[in-house]
Amino acid sequence: MTIRVRWHNESMAREVSRFPVPALQDLPEDVRARILQVQEKAGFVPNIFLVLARRPDEFRAFFAYHDALMLKEGGLSKAEREMIVVATSAANQCLYCVVAHGAILRIHEKDPLIADQLAVNHRRADLSPRRRAMLDFAMKVALRSGEVDGADFARLAEHGLSDEDAWDIAAIAAFFAMSNRLANATGMQPNDEFYLMGRVPGKR
Amino acid sequence: MTIRVRWHNESMAREVSRFPVPALQDLPEDVRARILQVQEKAGFVPNIFLVLARRPDEFRAFFAYHDALMLKEGGLSKAEREMIVVATSAANQCLYCVVAHGAILRIHEKDPLIADQLAVNHRRADLSPRRRAMLDFAMKVALRSGEVDGADFARLAEHGLSDEDAWDIAAIAAFFAMSNRLANATGMQPNDEFYLMGRVPGKR
Amino acid sequence: MTIRVRWHNESMAREVSRFPVPALQDLPEDVRARILQVQEKAGFVPNIFLVLARRPDEFRAFFAYHDALMLKEGGLSKAEREMIVVATSAANQCLYCVVAHGAILRIHEKDPLIADQLAVNHRRADLSPRRRAMLDFAMKVALRSGEVDGADFARLAEHGLSDEDAWDIAAIAAFFAMSNRLANATGMQPNDEFYLMGRVPGKR
Amino acid sequence: MTIRVRWHNESMAREVSRFPVPALQDLPEDVRARILQVQEKAGFVPNIFLVLARRPDEFRAFFAYHDALMLKEGGLSKAEREMIVVATSAANQCLYCVVAHGAILRIHEKDPLIADQLAVNHRRADLSPRRRAMLDFAMKVALRSGEVDGADFARLAEHGLSDEDAWDIAAIAAFFAMSNRLANATGMQPNDEFYLMGRVPGKR
Amino acid sequence: MTIRVRWHNESMAREVSRFPVPALQDLPEDVRARILQVQEKAGFVPNIFLVLARRPDEFRAFFAYHDALMLKEGGLSKAEREMIVVATSAANQCLYCVVAHGAILRIHEKDPLIADQLAVNHRRADLSPRRRAMLDFAMKVALRSGEVDGADFARLAEHGLSDEDAWDIAAIAAFFAMSNRLANATGMQPNDEFYLMGRVPGKR
Amino acid sequence: MTIRVRWHNESMAREVSRFPVPALQDLPEDVRARILQVQEKAGFVPNIFLVLARRPDEFRAFFAYHDALMLKEGGLSKAEREMIVVATSAANQCLYCVVAHGAILRIHEKDPLIADQLAVNHRRADLSPRRRAMLDFAMKVALRSGEVDGADFARLAEHGLSDEDAWDIAAIAAFFAMSNRLANATGMQPNDEFYLMGRVPGKR
Repeated sequence: MTIRVRWHNESMAREVSRFPVPALQDLPEDVRARILQVQEKAGFVPNIFLVLARRPDEFRAFFAYHDALMLKEGGLSKAEREMIVVATSAANQCLYCVVAHGAILRIHEKDPLIADQLAVNHRRADLSPRRRAMLDFAMKVALRSGEVDGADFARLAEHGLSDEDAWDIAAIAAFFAMSNRLANATGMQPNDEFYLMGRVPGKR
Repeated sequence: MTIRVRWHNESMAREVSRFPVPALQDLPEDVRARILQVQEKAGFVPNIFLVLARRPDEFRAFFAYHDALMLKEGGLSKAEREMIVVATSAANQCLYCVVAHGAILRIHEKDPLIADQLAVNHRRADLSPRRRAMLDFAMKVALRSGEVDGADFARLAEHGLSDEDAWDIAAIAAFFAMSNRLANATGMQPNDEFYLMGRVPGKR
Repeated sequence: MTIRVRWHNESMAREVSRFPVPALQDLPEDVRARILQVQEKAGFVPNIFLVLARRPDEFRAFFAYHDALMLKEGGLSKAEREMIVVATSAANQCLYCVVAHGAILRIHEKDPLIADQLAVNHRRADLSPRRRAMLDFAMKVALRSGEVDGADFARLAEHGLSDEDAWDIAAIAAFFAMSNRLANATGMQPNDEFYLMGRVPGKR
Repeated sequence: MTIRVRWHNESMAREVSRFPVPALQDLPEDVRARILQVQEKAGFVPNIFLVLARRPDEFRAFFAYHDALMLKEGGLSKAEREMIVVATSAANQCLYCVVAHGAILRIHEKDPLIADQLAVNHRRADLSPRRRAMLDFAMKVALRSGEVDGADFARLAEHGLSDEDAWDIAAIAAFFAMSNRLANATGMQPNDEFYLMGRVPGKR
Repeated sequence: MTIRVRWHNESMAREVSRFPVPALQDLPEDVRARILQVQEKAGFVPNIFLVLARRPDEFRAFFAYHDALMLKEGGLSKAEREMIVVATSAANQCLYCVVAHGAILRIHEKDPLIADQLAVNHRRADLSPRRRAMLDFAMKVALRSGEVDGADFARLAEHGLSDEDAWDIAAIAAFFAMSNRLANATGMQPNDEFYLMGRVPGKR
Repeated sequence: MTIRVRWHNESMAREVSRFPVPALQDLPEDVRARILQVQEKAGFVPNIFLVLARRPDEFRAFFAYHDALMLKEGGLSKAEREMIVVATSAANQCLYCVVAHGAILRIHEKDPLIADQLAVNHRRADLSPRRRAMLDFAMKVALRSGEVDGADFARLAEHGLSDEDAWDIAAIAAFFAMSNRLANATGMQPNDEFYLMGRVPGKR
């Protein structure tokens, strides 16, 4: 199966980021298993897995945190969580996160346009007032978190967003504040596959 | 032993953050154990443990990530890692992180003045050129990560900081970009104990 | 033929911008002719034509200026001119211009990825040093034009970009500084068609 | 008559901008006619005409657009249009536009002080609430157009400014966003004559 | 003589600032004497004297400081000191200081254009390299003083500006950082007389 | 007594600032007396006295102004005045003022934590609404004084802060806008003594 791991290809590996990608066989078993699993599911290995693999402890903590925030049940839909990622990652000029999570958002929301709208200007996207309030709060956490106060929670509540939802919004914006900086500092490139995903009706 | 867990006291718990603190007995065993362990060691429970405990999965991932970055061996000393935390957390106006990690920095560096200097203006602290380069890069990752490029890594190398060190610096700045936003959004307050720690010679 | 003018459809017209779209038959002959001509060529009428049509004198001047800058011969290729548009329009958070000119850029450059890269962070795009210098100057004109000085022209010259090229770069960045503000202030929406154009190999 | 065209004088021409000024006799007939006409009227040739003359197509489009916005009838007086120009051009640090349009504003408004007030801080000028709302909107279009939304139009309406007036305000702020960047990038200098115009009562 | 003290006139006094102006006869003798002296010399009382007079201790300290910095002998000419005032006051959007000190600068430098140039963009003024370095440093002190370091002093030295000159530049920029904020917070208006002073050759 | 003047010690004097400290015996009598007086009272000479002493006229005006604002009677307590100093000085990244006035604030307010809270984020400090309004206004004067208007005074009045109090707040924020820039430009270091003052209960 490892023959399908495309990141063994040297010419591609060089483009993944500023840091060299470790060989698959050198990785701890759990890290390798997760990488093969995502490849099995997605058809390719998103570069974030390859870049973080050289630091297995950080790899494990990163994805454990990611899954705790993005895959959990709760008041926000999966698409809404991805909206937060795309809007805040664009504000942080993170190419990897905008392109990769833009793809996931298009698929979850079944809307080929929403990701580009959020990436350029979340105020121009065609959003419900609840989602607009959600993103306004996420952007404040991303860009001016020192100014967050009770009035922000009150505005969320007006749109039916609970304090637990507020935590989720803030935690996702915070997690991707980290992720954006990691990707920007390592020069991480999005896989080519992400750019087109979810754009053509009837295709993934 | 649990009798010493001061966060059971309601009047204090209310000040910890905007979110209620769960009862110790309701926490999963591993989370409770970690909290009791840190209390045993520090003499009190830093509020970050209390605030995150209500989300055990996030608690586990957060501290796993923290430990992977802050407790590991490597080219940066523990004090230097804390310098990165203090300088970038001040730039993000995070009271909890500046005060709590300022205390840890004073203790590790055995310097009662360094944390206040870094919190106000890292350019005014009495630092070696290597540490100044380390903090300049950390601040760029914290504040303008979209502009990081090869010249930043070259400048670090001039001061003997390797690409692995650069990853450490960037990852710490990134992790606290997250942590600062969590603390700011939840209104997390630093424990009173942190303010004085490491300031009086001969005392912790 | 006018039957194909889709902007007669009320439900679409309402989405074009905050301002009502005039009826085709009420437009001056030259304005109507230009609109029908672009529809003939593109298969649809880009919303910028519909929004500006209600001000015929401004319509004429806008497109005369646009054509003078974007269609002329010169040291910059058509794709390079569109690169300037996409990068600076993203800096100005102009959804219409990023999406519409992103499409045109993909087609001219025959690269399905370049527009998204430039829209998020032009420093992360895979560009020649000459194109990077071109875009750095364009971004300075867009965002800090009061600081432009002789050193900027010298840096362009190092990359073989003449003073005439510098004028072109500056004039395109300046023209879209105007266009971005018009689109943002009128709430102009990009046509749905633009989002996918140039993304699928072998298709427009 | 051409003997009065002062820009033939080499020592002056060198100061007009970073770009050389073409010889009058080399210009297309319509461009030359417009230059001679403005000289006839003003007594001198404003440098913007000399700088743009080397690009006749851009010259024609620029002045056609300028005249469509600044000379038309409408809800805003000529002086009010010039107020928008002066305030937004100062925000963009455009020396040419502040000085040249400051002169025109003083003359139209018959107020020797208003231009300097608007250039330094439009909030300190002695303006009617309607004009203050007009300039607040113009400044938002100039500096943060991505944030314009329906509330801005509602505030204008409270002061009797219609959607057509809003278009005019936005279009003027947008046109000078372009003009300011052209002037800044070319290093265009205002003619000495502008500085004193409209300042001395009883004199132009 | 007091009959010539125009600020007794209520209709004018109301425009001086947000704060009421005290009656001349109620002022301490030294404050009154200084006001009558400046009126004798200038022909009118600059509003800064009227606004500060209600706080005699602050009045005395303000003008003592002002005179120590602006009237002393030293490496900078009086006109150069005023250049620092005009450029930094414009950056702080202080109408009073730009207009009042713009007048003084025009008179000292015998140049009717320099003040407007510095107020809009000091990079566009026709300055010697030494004066450009002086103003670049002043602007850094005004806007980003936390970043001042040894390299700034070295650059000044390259242009023949000593450490004493650097102190003067910094102290003037700092004093007007104060003065600008006082004028902005009190809503202080410049006297009409200042706007035209020094603009007409052969007249004050 | 002069034997206790520690700044005679060369190794310390070098650290005071970028500028050399004059010998005590070379100072004018009044300046020397003030320095000895403050040493008598505080037990050491705060570096601001040593740095400014080389410019006696500026020294006198600076402290006269300081005393007029900070020692006077009025609606604001001495501790409240120091709160303004600490919060605005942190915004200006002035190490000297944050550390020295943080010490004075802790002593006056008898609160060992308040200074650190205000230095990192005044919104996170445990303040009465009146003090929060006071500091919000002070920060606006410090950072965006050009935007101050009547609504700011109205908000202060809602919290019982009169126009005289508003003047005091603005004047203190303005005075330290100057002081911060002087300290930053001269590289002034806080005395070590200040860091710990007021932190240990029962001790100064």
